[in-house]
Amino acid sequence: MKNIKLIVAYDGTNYHGFQLQQNAVTVQEKLEQAMQTVFREPVRLTAAGRTDTGVHALGQVVTVQVKTGVPTDRIPYALNATLPRDIVVSSAEVMPDNFHARFSVKSKVYRYTIDNAPYPRVLQRLYSLHVRYPLDLELMQQAAMTLVGRHDFTSFMASGSSVKTTVRHLTRLDVSEQDGFYTITAEANGFLYNMVRIIAGTLIEVGRHKRSPELGSVICAGSRMAAGWTAPAYGLVMLEVKY
Amino acid sequence: MKNIKLIVAYDGTNYHGFQLQQNAVTVQEKLEQAMQTVFREPVRLTAAGRTDTGVHALGQVVTVQVKTGVPTDRIPYALNATLPRDIVVSSAEVMPDNFHARFSVKSKVYRYTIDNAPYPRVLQRLYSLHVRYPLDLELMQQAAMTLVGRHDFTSFMASGSSVKTTVRHLTRLDVSEQDGFYTITAEANGFLYNMVRIIAGTLIEVGRHKRSPELGSVICAGSRMAAGWTAPAYGLVMLEVKY
Repeated sequence: MKNIKLIVAYDGTNYHGFQLQQNAVTVQEKLEQAMQTVFREPVRLTAAGRTDTGVHALGQVVTVQVKTGVPTDRIPYALNATLPRDIVVSSAEVMPDNFHARFSVKSKVYRYTIDNAPYPRVLQRLYSLHVRYPLDLELMQQAAMTLVGRHDFTSFMASGSSVKTTVRHLTRLDVSEQDGFYTITAEANGFLYNMVRIIAGTLIEVGRHKRSPELGSVICAGSRMAAGWTAPAYGLVMLEVKY
Repeated sequence: MKNIKLIVAYDGTNYHGFQLQQNAVTVQEKLEQAMQTVFREPVRLTAAGRTDTGVHALGQVVTVQVKTGVPTDRIPYALNATLPRDIVVSSAEVMPDNFHARFSVKSKVYRYTIDNAPYPRVLQRLYSLHVRYPLDLELMQQAAMTLVGRHDFTSFMASGSSVKTTVRHLTRLDVSEQDGFYTITAEANGFLYNMVRIIAGTLIEVGRHKRSPELGSVICAGSRMAAGWTAPAYGLVMLEVKY
């Protein structure tokens, strides 16, 4: 058996998230169908992480164990020929047996995009949140700095989620602007449920001068009520997974 | 009556082109419906040009004559609140009575986008043609230069079209590359049917070393057979109309 690692990009618009579901079309389902066609054996993939309904990916990572004789460098072409156009495999690599798509992750990088033009940019509307009010970039950058580090991010987790620990190490939270598009890039060893979207929503409130850029107190509150709005899924992209 | 000029952007993916049609959804239909809702009077718009099924626009220009008391600067917001999300009005301006969306045009600018990455960039797939073969940028730029000027562009017109004259003044044909995206920007006093798409298809053949970059002979041939492939609609954007 070969342990094959694939890098997968997808437009989440028309999927009910990544993970297999009864009665709903998901990215995993489409990927496993294509793999079964190409590899001609039963497959069950493992992904670096799930993405929610409407969230996109450029660098999702999945592994699959197959006996296939298809040359590794042909695998992306073969899968892409079978996959719908909104899912694209951009790389295939044979990994050691002990490589695991989820457990071997060192960090993940997500990007949230805000379109700050007076009117929405129509060709980017599926991949960015339109905010027509002025956003104070410097204030957002200051606020982002107060979140970087190893913290209990309970305040930035969807209420009702259950996890072993709510401590995460946020190693990077950059806010930048180009042509009226604001991008928030977040890197951490892991993210809590809705964490990037709540950070994005909170930073937007800061940028609109509706909230202090000092977010240490939000972390300390340890309550979802203390943070801001959950920005919508379609502005979010899973950018990269590092191993 | 006010003569109102609007700048309109749209994602052409889900429309059967701009112009009104029986039994098919078009951008004009959606715009006129929204105008009737906002202005509460019958309207018939005039556009700078039609775009074909699947072609996008960032700078389509339309005019409409209405009595409306809606303040001009509120018109884009009012229309956008009524329009589907894939059509966006970005500007409204009252013009002199003799301003005509079509007859007053000085030039139009179109852009064709090619994604030259090994695998298609999934979030740009609806707005760019994926070409996986290497493209020779310099050769494409040389070829483009041989088309600039005032010529009979019969060879670059869909066969079967009928127009008064096939002479057009192509004032600009730039080819550039950034991050593996090739963009062909064309400006002329007017374009023949499918002209930009045939130019794009021909330049791609040049870039793949399948055709000489000397396109003067293609112009001289005066026959659609002499030029290249018609590149697909979804890579094309009507960028700007100049008056």
